[in-house]
Amino acid sequence: MNVHPDECVIGVDYGTLSGRAVVVRVRDGAELGSAVHEYRHGVIERALPATGAPLPPDWALQVPEDYREVLKIAVPEALSNAGIDPRRVIGISTDFTACTVLPTLADGTPLCELDELRERPHAYVKLWKHHAAQPQADRINALAHERKERWIGRYGGKISSEWQFAKALQLLEEDPDTYAWTERWIEAADWIIWQLCGVETRNACTAGYKGILQDGEYPSSEYLAALHPDFADFPATRLAHPISPLGAKAGTLTAQAAEWTGLPEGIAVAVGNVDAHVTSPAARAVAPGQMLAVMGTSTCHVMNGTELLDVPGICGVVDGGIMAGLYGYEAGQSGVGDIFAWHVEHGVPEYVSREAAERGVSVHDLLSEQAADQPVGGHGLVALDWHNGNRSVLVDHHLSGVIVGLTLATRPHEVYRALVEATAYGTRKIIETFEAAGLPVTEFVVAGGLKRNRFVMQIYADVLRLPISLGTSEQAPALGSAIHAAVAAGAYPDVAAAAEAMGKAEAAAYTPDPARADAYDALYAEYRLLHDHFGPGDQLHRLRDIRNRALGA
Amino acid sequence: MNVHPDECVIGVDYGTLSGRAVVVRVRDGAELGSAVHEYRHGVIERALPATGAPLPPDWALQVPEDYREVLKIAVPEALSNAGIDPRRVIGISTDFTACTVLPTLADGTPLCELDELRERPHAYVKLWKHHAAQPQADRINALAHERKERWIGRYGGKISSEWQFAKALQLLEEDPDTYAWTERWIEAADWIIWQLCGVETRNACTAGYKGILQDGEYPSSEYLAALHPDFADFPATRLAHPISPLGAKAGTLTAQAAEWTGLPEGIAVAVGNVDAHVTSPAARAVAPGQMLAVMGTSTCHVMNGTELLDVPGICGVVDGGIMAGLYGYEAGQSGVGDIFAWHVEHGVPEYVSREAAERGVSVHDLLSEQAADQPVGGHGLVALDWHNGNRSVLVDHHLSGVIVGLTLATRPHEVYRALVEATAYGTRKIIETFEAAGLPVTEFVVAGGLKRNRFVMQIYADVLRLPISLGTSEQAPALGSAIHAAVAAGAYPDVAAAAEAMGKAEAAAYTPDPARADAYDALYAEYRLLHDHFGPGDQLHRLRDIRNRALGA
Repeated sequence: MNVHPDECVIGVDYGTLSGRAVVVRVRDGAELGSAVHEYRHGVIERALPATGAPLPPDWALQVPEDYREVLKIAVPEALSNAGIDPRRVIGISTDFTACTVLPTLADGTPLCELDELRERPHAYVKLWKHHAAQPQADRINALAHERKERWIGRYGGKISSEWQFAKALQLLEEDPDTYAWTERWIEAADWIIWQLCGVETRNACTAGYKGILQDGEYPSSEYLAALHPDFADFPATRLAHPISPLGAKAGTLTAQAAEWTGLPEGIAVAVGNVDAHVTSPAARAVAPGQMLAVMGTSTCHVMNGTELLDVPGICGVVDGGIMAGLYGYEAGQSGVGDIFAWHVEHGVPEYVSREAAERGVSVHDLLSEQAADQPVGGHGLVALDWHNGNRSVLVDHHLSGVIVGLTLATRPHEVYRALVEATAYGTRKIIETFEAAGLPVTEFVVAGGLKRNRFVMQIYADVLRLPISLGTSEQAPALGSAIHAAVAAGAYPDVAAAAEAMGKAEAAAYTPDPARADAYDALYAEYRLLHDHFGPGDQLHRLRDIRNRALGA
Repeated sequence: MNVHPDECVIGVDYGTLSGRAVVVRVRDGAELGSAVHEYRHGVIERALPATGAPLPPDWALQVPEDYREVLKIAVPEALSNAGIDPRRVIGISTDFTACTVLPTLADGTPLCELDELRERPHAYVKLWKHHAAQPQADRINALAHERKERWIGRYGGKISSEWQFAKALQLLEEDPDTYAWTERWIEAADWIIWQLCGVETRNACTAGYKGILQDGEYPSSEYLAALHPDFADFPATRLAHPISPLGAKAGTLTAQAAEWTGLPEGIAVAVGNVDAHVTSPAARAVAPGQMLAVMGTSTCHVMNGTELLDVPGICGVVDGGIMAGLYGYEAGQSGVGDIFAWHVEHGVPEYVSREAAERGVSVHDLLSEQAADQPVGGHGLVALDWHNGNRSVLVDHHLSGVIVGLTLATRPHEVYRALVEATAYGTRKIIETFEAAGLPVTEFVVAGGLKRNRFVMQIYADVLRLPISLGTSEQAPALGSAIHAAVAAGAYPDVAAAAEAMGKAEAAAYTPDPARADAYDALYAEYRLLHDHFGPGDQLHRLRDIRNRALGA
């Protein structure tokens, strides 16, 4: 290895509302300084700033210049906060939300930056949570199953409306002019790297998870023509490009990007990456059997495996999707912290919020404290954590939440605990599905905001019967990006080695209590009965249809 | 008929915490004056006042002298409030909570009034909600099914721990001395009449619904001996007595009772009755097909029928149990207003209670107003109303509540509405069971506190597809007692005629909206699926067992 004691790298984490730059020391991963810059336009959901024209429901756009501003403002500020000489920096990399995707010219110019197109909503970045392409996604899925397309199985049987093909088809169908202008359809994750090094690259992670690239091929032109005649050549004309493995060097920092950032021209720029996946090395969770869970409003699970296996109901399996040389498996739970917050906001009475205020603790903390006193099963409740649908393993966003066992003696902290437990049962179901498919899970590594909640973590340890390790960096995605930058700069031979040196984890911070784990086995059996009753059954769908018709009428 | 324009009767309604006397004009049921007297000892649940000795859990006792005090205080006060000459009063009657039962000497002296026994908890009145005889009830039920006793089918397959035999067996087993002193085991409903007229009577209602008297016979001595050898002669020695039909004259007011009440000695005293059943004539709901629902914290349903039919899951069917000459059917829902109150107290956040306070309305009213705006099914929810168990038609107190269809967009008023609807679906299930057994229900007549809630009433009309009439007296049980007193005094030939003249109802105060009723058919189908899944299934029982073991450990 070739690690100078003072060398640093920069990791930049592009989130939904802001970008965060962190200066990281290459030899040990020490985070020397950081800075956050909020996007000037935030998330554009109601009206296009250029025209004031209102957007239809479910749209979510962003402005690419906001991403450049993070480079211009947050990177120099992080360098300044770190108090280091910029010449010590040997590489930079980024991670992004995904699928966050935009149309550009062949040179990478975003279409929304052209005078001819700045008034067209479809010329802008479609953020991951732009959900207006659902009709297109529905047709993509129906046709894939009808034609028995092989790739659909790699995505749990369902492509999301958030992904590249659904969003591109929406563009083509709703604004063919702008589609005709589109020379490249590119993830923001790759576009920002293009801005840094002046060279287009396509990273293995987004190409596989969001771009339906499997075994080196996109969906066939016959299949695409059946969706729309003009869509047949979409991947060949707008996506096709050699795929770069994660940790590879995309190029070197251009003079212009050096000027923006204050970094030396010519330093290594690593290929793009995605926030959840890049957290694996930051939390030292890269070995097969180590499942990383990024737990916040929702949970994203990623794990490496040595073989390509068929795991039902996952979000995707991608060769090199997390780390080059291994198959990356991704699963998820669409509601976790969101569900706890919903209960706290809409289901907790004044006497609880008053007590929390009087004691100067959060409602979450008060409910956790009250619930933690109770023996396992003492509330008599079991819930299904589907308030925001079920991403894995049922892949059904039209499911909804259920709670069973309510009595007049049921209290708010008991419901809170039942909801926390329900999300843990949902995770156990995912792990059991991985294991049944031949992917044993031996350690559960948690990153994300919920890792700080001791109450939640202990319940997960007990329900899963697994040691729970914590990714301890508070800026784990940016650290993960920095790790990739260090590899691209040649400081480490590969991401695994860099993760070992630079990643930060507390191993087995929580361990299962055998008696509580035994008690949870009985409750998990009840969860599974509910899961298997309401999951494949149509009742929750009928209730949603009734609701939608009632509200639409 | 023989109704003098000025004649009056007195109805006295004995509730859980107080007794209410009402002066009623015989010719038209006008309520001229009333008074309430709270029981001095209330409900004795923690310690016996005579000794201070603590009571075990689930005990609930009362003191019979408190009942006499209602006669001494509330009756004269009601007369005074009415401003009438007591000589105008031609009769008196009472109704009581049931099964509220006490041991006495052969002359009616309560055992707790004997110096030898006043320190014995078992010598006192066991209030209806004394639930400490559950082990005895369990054995009574198990043995009845084992021996295929015919009478158990008349009670939906289950005798309650609240009823006469369970409470008497507890007395025998836990305090055989006091049991030996017991010469009569009598409902408070009959005991108070004994106090008024000096003659023991037994009314058909409590003997049938609470005393297991069917076709003129109590359970056999063989059966009883198998429960406990000394219990074999229990009905023969402590219950047996000719049964009086409702509305019959028990006797005439004694000199002593005349002195207590300020009423003329020698006026008619009608036989005892029960609060829910006596409300039928008060609300003019006595014809077959008119189902009376007394809706408060729980709901009691009573309806007359011309035939003895087997209706699964009812609380009981008793010949003359509501009105002489007809079969009285009783069913019930163990949680109704209680469930709404539980949600308001423990599931409604500060922003709702604050808005209610700012607008000067109750939280119930605010939630009702918000929920009423929504189209049927617009919340996407369906719930099971079993938070306090299910009395009819599942007869299972160990069931619990379920709510299905929750999303992150679910709001407190939507849950409130779903709970109201769930109780309406529970009522529809009872009505459908009556109808399937050959007892058509053509009108739903509501008495009790919930009749004032327009939001709840309209939902019931729409869900049941029935006109909803209201019993409009605010003192309906006392009015019902007064109606029985008028019949006993000979002012009317029978209770039906007296009800016609003196009862108070608003016919078809609510009628179903056809479009909403159609929409509710679809939701009720979902309720029935949940009902049939969770009712016979064991999941709710297992969750309760897990809870009980966890809390007991």
